[in-house]
Amino acid sequence: MRFTIRRDEFVKGLSIASRAVASKTPVVVLANFKLEIDEEGLVIIGSNYDLSIRTFIPFRIGENEIIRNYKEGSTLLNAKILLEIARKMESDELTLEIVDSTIAAISDNRSKYTLNCIRPEEYPDLDLESEGTTLNMTTAEFGLMVEQTAFAASIKEQRPVLTAINLEAREGLLTATTTDSARMAKKIMTVPEDINFNVNVPAKMMSEVAHLLEGSASVEIAVSQKKALFSFGRTLVATRLIAGDYPNTSNIIPRVTNHVLEVNAQDLVKAIDRANILSIDRENIVDLSMSEEGIEISAKSSQVGSAVERIEMFRYEGAPLTISFNSEFVVAAVRALSSEDVTFSFVGEMKPFVIKNSADDSIVQIVTPVRTY
Amino acid sequence: MRFTIRRDEFVKGLSIASRAVASKTPVVVLANFKLEIDEEGLVIIGSNYDLSIRTFIPFRIGENEIIRNYKEGSTLLNAKILLEIARKMESDELTLEIVDSTIAAISDNRSKYTLNCIRPEEYPDLDLESEGTTLNMTTAEFGLMVEQTAFAASIKEQRPVLTAINLEAREGLLTATTTDSARMAKKIMTVPEDINFNVNVPAKMMSEVAHLLEGSASVEIAVSQKKALFSFGRTLVATRLIAGDYPNTSNIIPRVTNHVLEVNAQDLVKAIDRANILSIDRENIVDLSMSEEGIEISAKSSQVGSAVERIEMFRYEGAPLTISFNSEFVVAAVRALSSEDVTFSFVGEMKPFVIKNSADDSIVQIVTPVRTY
Repeated sequence: MRFTIRRDEFVKGLSIASRAVASKTPVVVLANFKLEIDEEGLVIIGSNYDLSIRTFIPFRIGENEIIRNYKEGSTLLNAKILLEIARKMESDELTLEIVDSTIAAISDNRSKYTLNCIRPEEYPDLDLESEGTTLNMTTAEFGLMVEQTAFAASIKEQRPVLTAINLEAREGLLTATTTDSARMAKKIMTVPEDINFNVNVPAKMMSEVAHLLEGSASVEIAVSQKKALFSFGRTLVATRLIAGDYPNTSNIIPRVTNHVLEVNAQDLVKAIDRANILSIDRENIVDLSMSEEGIEISAKSSQVGSAVERIEMFRYEGAPLTISFNSEFVVAAVRALSSEDVTFSFVGEMKPFVIKNSADDSIVQIVTPVRTY
Repeated sequence: MRFTIRRDEFVKGLSIASRAVASKTPVVVLANFKLEIDEEGLVIIGSNYDLSIRTFIPFRIGENEIIRNYKEGSTLLNAKILLEIARKMESDELTLEIVDSTIAAISDNRSKYTLNCIRPEEYPDLDLESEGTTLNMTTAEFGLMVEQTAFAASIKEQRPVLTAINLEAREGLLTATTTDSARMAKKIMTVPEDINFNVNVPAKMMSEVAHLLEGSASVEIAVSQKKALFSFGRTLVATRLIAGDYPNTSNIIPRVTNHVLEVNAQDLVKAIDRANILSIDRENIVDLSMSEEGIEISAKSSQVGSAVERIEMFRYEGAPLTISFNSEFVVAAVRALSSEDVTFSFVGEMKPFVIKNSADDSIVQIVTPVRTY
């Protein structure tokens, strides 16, 4: 195996595949990249089993020769070290060559590195074949869906299914749902009528895919029983699914609400952020007091003092109401709506409340109040 | 006590004083700022005993009214909370008022905060009077002196005196010396003939002063038996000194050297940084092999592999020599010289070697090699 490659493209490919390589892994061989060059180009694979990334570098991109002087073959090389060497080298091109089956030489005109390598047969077989239902989305749609939902997934592993984004395609609608039991985000988009699936994709991996997607126009998603596969550009990402039924969240969104508050998102977020300085005794818990006369955010610490913030511009309908909530949850929900104005709808003091983008019905955020007495 | 103050100037003053307030302090009262307003203006004090900062905000700065509507008095207020509130408020002005002796109200047109405050008598007496020998330096001189020496001070507390920058003024020369036993930095500047002192100022605090100095043109340093006092702008910083004799370092700089290497600083730093990727078995140790034919930096790990870097442009005089050293020490020393080219002078394999700025004799860096066999 041998090739001379443009360093910038090599670093780009290694960086993509490295997103799947865990810094510490119990399966030692997965600390390596699998590199494989044949008559089509160079394939780089990184994996931690849960997430696998395969990316491809062709011999030419447009007018530019990317790889030259190659000899077919494949090997496994320490991912962290190889990426760091390639990143820090200074020439436009570098050459990688397997000297004998156990040593790879990486060199340019001033640097020469030799790395112990492992036979490619040691690498596990990864299932990277596309199968099941496929669905196309633009990068913008996919990114917004992840941004508006992923943050509300649980980060605790006790109920693994809650660490996922539940993706359900049915009757022409794709619904992305996340909940950590105390809050929920639900995004609804239209898809072709014949697409049907219901899977739980780890939220962290959806965010990882959204990050990798930057720069591509669209993504093809293939969903099967055991995995979701995302293809874009010259890269393919496979993530395992989380088994188990996602909780039924259809009854959480209240049908009738008694109090409605419309407010500027920035004003609200800044007021909550300030009042939060004093939410020391019960971390992050602030009070929202509403009446047609005025809106106040407040927090109190018996040791340190208290904060009262007035919101100047608002529209409120309903009887006076005071609600206590986790300020981080509300701020994250409001930010995810990416709207100038947001609308809160309340049923009562201890009932989950709804936050919506005043101009976009496709996304709804739900937060459960906390008891403060 | 009461005053209405421009928020930007108040935040600036609180931020300066906050650099002396420790996030965790055994002396509870030192978690507070001391604020004191009289007919001259507002004084803000922060301290952790080792470092104390007093800064002053006058009623007017040039044409602009900064403080108005004031009533004399003083109080102690939680530093972290007060700074965070003032930073996050949105109006141009805020008002601070002691409501009764135990409660301060901080407010603008939309926010109202009440903080429990402490009587000013609880604050310790800090010795902030100027005394002893004084010396003026430009900010640029002071900053360069600290930048070129502070990094080589010890960060271990076993020998407290080594955590200091030793400042010795004698016979018209000011010498700043740091050493952690494995390396040394020495900067020499001219000062008036009549200035004499020899003190150990904690290196961390010298760096803190250099940071605070940004924006001022010059600094007045007053050195006495127990403290060093730095005055600049409307701010005064006092640091304790470290007792004990600083080790005699005058014999460490070798008088005669047998090998001289002149090399581009950037080339060398980059080559060391790359080779260092492979210094895994003995962290950060790399080898420098020199002869008139060529210069190589190398590192080796039995597990992972090896690196060899060639330096293209160099001037070398002397018999061939190989030296092993801590790459972080050499990189830090070379960077601190802030020179395009640097000159290394070696006595032999296990003797401390000298690194100098080829164009500036006022600063010398010494590094002790390590044994690799």
